[in-house]
Amino acid sequence: MIIAIQCTDQVGLVAKISGLLAAENYNIVAMQEHVDKTENLFFMRLEVNKDANADGLEQQLADLLPPDASIKINPNPEKNAIVLVTKEYHCLADILVRNHFKTLGANVQCVIGNHDTLGDICKRFDIPFYHVPYDVPAEPEKKVLEIIAGYEHDYIVLAKFMRVISPEFVNRFHNKIVNIHHSFLPAFAGANPYRQAYERGVKLIGATAHFVTDELDEGPIIAQQIIPANHSLTTADMIRAGKEIETAVLAKALRMVFDDRVFIYKNKTVVLE
Amino acid sequence: MIIAIQCTDQVGLVAKISGLLAAENYNIVAMQEHVDKTENLFFMRLEVNKDANADGLEQQLADLLPPDASIKINPNPEKNAIVLVTKEYHCLADILVRNHFKTLGANVQCVIGNHDTLGDICKRFDIPFYHVPYDVPAEPEKKVLEIIAGYEHDYIVLAKFMRVISPEFVNRFHNKIVNIHHSFLPAFAGANPYRQAYERGVKLIGATAHFVTDELDEGPIIAQQIIPANHSLTTADMIRAGKEIETAVLAKALRMVFDDRVFIYKNKTVVLE
Amino acid sequence: MIIAIQCTDQVGLVAKISGLLAAENYNIVAMQEHVDKTENLFFMRLEVNKDANADGLEQQLADLLPPDASIKINPNPEKNAIVLVTKEYHCLADILVRNHFKTLGANVQCVIGNHDTLGDICKRFDIPFYHVPYDVPAEPEKKVLEIIAGYEHDYIVLAKFMRVISPEFVNRFHNKIVNIHHSFLPAFAGANPYRQAYERGVKLIGATAHFVTDELDEGPIIAQQIIPANHSLTTADMIRAGKEIETAVLAKALRMVFDDRVFIYKNKTVVLE
Amino acid sequence: MIIAIQCTDQVGLVAKISGLLAAENYNIVAMQEHVDKTENLFFMRLEVNKDANADGLEQQLADLLPPDASIKINPNPEKNAIVLVTKEYHCLADILVRNHFKTLGANVQCVIGNHDTLGDICKRFDIPFYHVPYDVPAEPEKKVLEIIAGYEHDYIVLAKFMRVISPEFVNRFHNKIVNIHHSFLPAFAGANPYRQAYERGVKLIGATAHFVTDELDEGPIIAQQIIPANHSLTTADMIRAGKEIETAVLAKALRMVFDDRVFIYKNKTVVLE
Repeated sequence: MIIAIQCTDQVGLVAKISGLLAAENYNIVAMQEHVDKTENLFFMRLEVNKDANADGLEQQLADLLPPDASIKINPNPEKNAIVLVTKEYHCLADILVRNHFKTLGANVQCVIGNHDTLGDICKRFDIPFYHVPYDVPAEPEKKVLEIIAGYEHDYIVLAKFMRVISPEFVNRFHNKIVNIHHSFLPAFAGANPYRQAYERGVKLIGATAHFVTDELDEGPIIAQQIIPANHSLTTADMIRAGKEIETAVLAKALRMVFDDRVFIYKNKTVVLE
Repeated sequence: MIIAIQCTDQVGLVAKISGLLAAENYNIVAMQEHVDKTENLFFMRLEVNKDANADGLEQQLADLLPPDASIKINPNPEKNAIVLVTKEYHCLADILVRNHFKTLGANVQCVIGNHDTLGDICKRFDIPFYHVPYDVPAEPEKKVLEIIAGYEHDYIVLAKFMRVISPEFVNRFHNKIVNIHHSFLPAFAGANPYRQAYERGVKLIGATAHFVTDELDEGPIIAQQIIPANHSLTTADMIRAGKEIETAVLAKALRMVFDDRVFIYKNKTVVLE
Repeated sequence: MIIAIQCTDQVGLVAKISGLLAAENYNIVAMQEHVDKTENLFFMRLEVNKDANADGLEQQLADLLPPDASIKINPNPEKNAIVLVTKEYHCLADILVRNHFKTLGANVQCVIGNHDTLGDICKRFDIPFYHVPYDVPAEPEKKVLEIIAGYEHDYIVLAKFMRVISPEFVNRFHNKIVNIHHSFLPAFAGANPYRQAYERGVKLIGATAHFVTDELDEGPIIAQQIIPANHSLTTADMIRAGKEIETAVLAKALRMVFDDRVFIYKNKTVVLE
Repeated sequence: MIIAIQCTDQVGLVAKISGLLAAENYNIVAMQEHVDKTENLFFMRLEVNKDANADGLEQQLADLLPPDASIKINPNPEKNAIVLVTKEYHCLADILVRNHFKTLGANVQCVIGNHDTLGDICKRFDIPFYHVPYDVPAEPEKKVLEIIAGYEHDYIVLAKFMRVISPEFVNRFHNKIVNIHHSFLPAFAGANPYRQAYERGVKLIGATAHFVTDELDEGPIIAQQIIPANHSLTTADMIRAGKEIETAVLAKALRMVFDDRVFIYKNKTVVLE
């Protein structure tokens, strides 16, 4: 059982929480906490190995903690996810493989593509695929929402989904949409980051997984990684190399998110690995 | 004030410790803990910001904790260090610069070299240098011990000291001698690691900082790092590149050790960064 | 068209080769060369964009170059590969995905497993799978050889194939078998490298892709990579993290091998990226 | 002797150049070349081991190569450098140490600081230090120029020089000023990059060494590197960690520049390592 707590910091919080758990005979298998001293915020993730009445525990914790505390108790860490794609296969295929072998940490319910390119790979893994063309801006999103409504979903994953999402869509899934951006944000936000990187002559290229907010490519960062680049790489080489790093960064970010390790505040994240 | 605790794990240890500190009105500025479940061992490092009677606190903690608890309370995190060298300047110069600008985390008391090559750089930084030739195996170590005895010392740093150390010497400074080894241990232990690496055709080279034990290059590892290598590097190139990584790894290890972040058990370390 | 040359070094080799190509009106699209000065060996990889009579060119080059020259001219860079596996899916699934989307640089002809665990994923990608149990040591290899004989094959890929291969098998496919080893060789050769790494308390874990020779885990290294590790990782965590790095390193090595970028000599490689 | 060539690409350039060198009995010890196909530009760096009449060779090469060829022949690879600093010691101390032990690849002629903080460390290494306060914007630069004029200088190194440089100054030393910027450009250009990075919640921090052009932090990038960051780092921690990476990146960039490995075009670099 995973317990995730986020609240105003106070002297003695760890003592209170671990005292309560010890008194109730929970065995703490893993505990990570972080205090942001600038913001006076406390973050804690616990894994405990007695699966007692989680509702009762939540109330007990709420009685102990500051009134602003967010307490998430997750008896079943398995999440459900819906994946949006365009044409590029690398992130989706990685997600489908992990999903198939039960190592994704979430169940992929369906995949929605604005092209039908990736329908075949979904079919090979017995995952429903919906083709929703995005030629008209307003209508396709409505269609996407209808499809999503038909499935259990904790998170929406944009696995190289190359269409703009409306503020309404973002707000409906507040802090629930994970995107992979093909650059080391905040460098090269927006379109054609590899062309930008090539023209700027950078010596590293990277990828960034982040939650989606209203502002394009500006949401809380979950994971980032880079690989060396140099003059010998063409834009095409950078794109190819970038796909490897995008796949790895999105996989890492999803593992953290699905495992309840990511806390969000002030447009940034605490990731308690 | 830094508190470092190592003991058998028990349910409720964090609660007990943080409860005591809260009751005594210490403000916990930073706290990291680790439990080795295989060995059932608990490790904790705390920074608290009330510098009260440390002796009293140590007793209070001892009363709370299992009888095997090691409790180190460090009101003054400044350490004293003695550095042993041969001819290579890179690690020593880095240590002297950090020492000079008070960012090493320890005060270098003196430097002892089995060659006199590095006397000049020590003099430039007003650090005593002793030249102890190592042509005869038994005698020079006696001389080194006499010099060490004349200075305050918490740690001995082997900053590219290329002579064998006797078991007696090692045991006298148990878990207090930090060495930088010019390879990614356990690969290429022993002499000429870069030649070995070159001949093996490795694609990465690395460096390892570790505590010194009786067995050559087999002590608890504190820090390791690598850099990419390839066929274009000669042995000489690997040596040059290796010096950069050795300097960085030793600096990192010393920062961890001098900041009371390294716990030793079972020939390995817990480093609570 | 790719040209790969390996021979004794001489003054003027680059001039001779590029002079011939210029005279024959080949346009050199990419050229990398390396000279091992210790061994006095010359390595060159060229991409040229006129697909002329390769046989004629080979003779012309042979006339120019030292008599020991190995000249490989590859008008069709597409290779054929056969993959051997046991139970772990991560490397195989990555290979199958790349193969399916035509980005592997080779065509996977079939997969042979000593368990049947991975038959299903092969079937999903329409790749023939053969289950050859390895309970009896001598017979199964004969069966594997028969299967291999039925397909075009330039390379054999051991994608987490956890059975020992006989010297006869190795010699039959000299410098044609690529293995992924789950450690940073030469550290932790042999079985259970993650347990070894955990017990040694290393701060980095890695993976090594290499050609297979008679001596276990001692063949020429093609690619290596590492990721940071620390005390918080259990052996199981190391295995999980190791799978990510194994997948990435094998993919990198295969890309280099299939793209005729890897030259072998003296139990090591030159990789002209 | 090092030969650096930059010109329009043509079929047969490598053959012409290596043919000439072979005819003149130069032994090519190292050769790297690069062709930018988009711009149709050719770059080559050669190390040859006969130190013949370089002027004659330059003319011979000029006769062979396209009329726009830039040919640099460097019989003596030792450069002279002048270093500008403010208060931070880390990059300067590293440069002074390497200079002292003759591994910098250039001779530091003098150091100029807009504060006097770093005069002491220069004195310890017998390097002239000039204190030029920058309270008035126009005058100090004139003074700096006078000091520079009194020394041999191939390059000006801004080793954490925190003052704006005028366009006149930049143009006078076109492609001769190397700066270390404390971020992974183009992210976080301008002031307080670590504060920006902290507030953005990035998971990596980096440093960039680049040539200085008129536009702030927009000049050709020579080297970049990053280190992982996370929520546990305060702005102060990021600054400390950043200093390590700044030191390493500037050292790498200077090694490349002083070794005639860096070619500049279109606001970017080719670095022939």
